[in-house]
Amino acid sequence: VLAELQKYRGDKILKSSKSALFIAKKELLKQDWCKTEPFEQKIREDGCYSKRITNYFCYGQCNSFYIPKMSKRRPKAHGNKRDHRNKHRNDSFRSCAFCKPKEFKYTTVILKCPSLTPSFRRKHVQIVRECRCIAQNMN
Amino acid sequence: VLAELQKYRGDKILKSSKSALFIAKKELLKQDWCKTEPFEQKIREDGCYSKRITNYFCYGQCNSFYIPKMSKRRPKAHGNKRDHRNKHRNDSFRSCAFCKPKEFKYTTVILKCPSLTPSFRRKHVQIVRECRCIAQNMN
Repeated sequence: VLAELQKYRGDKILKSSKSALFIAKKELLKQDWCKTEPFEQKIREDGCYSKRITNYFCYGQCNSFYIPKMSKRRPKAHGNKRDHRNKHRNDSFRSCAFCKPKEFKYTTVILKCPSLTPSFRRKHVQIVRECRCIAQNMN
Repeated sequence: VLAELQKYRGDKILKSSKSALFIAKKELLKQDWCKTEPFEQKIREDGCYSKRITNYFCYGQCNSFYIPKMSKRRPKAHGNKRDHRNKHRNDSFRSCAFCKPKEFKYTTVILKCPSLTPSFRRKHVQIVRECRCIAQNMN
């Protein structure tokens, strides 16, 4: 597999799904990005003065791949000695990453609400601390 | 919002989650990629001669973003006239795309299996036709 990968320039056909998996991982390495940028989030409620706080949003381009493989269904433990019912399934190596918050913190914002009783409201707000490309479960 | 977006160079803080959403979409536009590359897939079964067919795998970098927003829970239809139980939830605009097959075709491979009865096996194989960045449901 390694020799094949060293020769790979995208112009020859790979000999197995495992080589394809190595190529996908190698080509994707180090190129993904996921930014953490600030914005002003308005915290509001009917009857209250709104407040603005700094929160963060995430955006970027993260790696994903999908490589078909045939997987053999495991024979049943108590099957026949020559069990012809073993079937191959259409399966895949798959991975997909999402540029999203890796960590949050929480803050409480108190809004003044002159027309309400009591005349304030507490809002619990989730603040994004840091964004990352995070692999999602795609099964 | 538009005036703000035209000025945006990443050095000033955006004034709302909607501006953040426009920026994320604008910055991400046109930069994603998702390749469709051939590889040889081995089709095999115990007791049969294996065959190789050309299948395709997908890999690339697709867009994703996550932008916090406060969403107001809808008041209940039969609630009080002044229903203080309306709560804001920590919510988000979110999107994540996956470089994966947009389309498949199917083929039947017949393997010769001298030691089995009958002496061949039919395998139904899913072939990837084309890969694309495809938005996934992230809720």
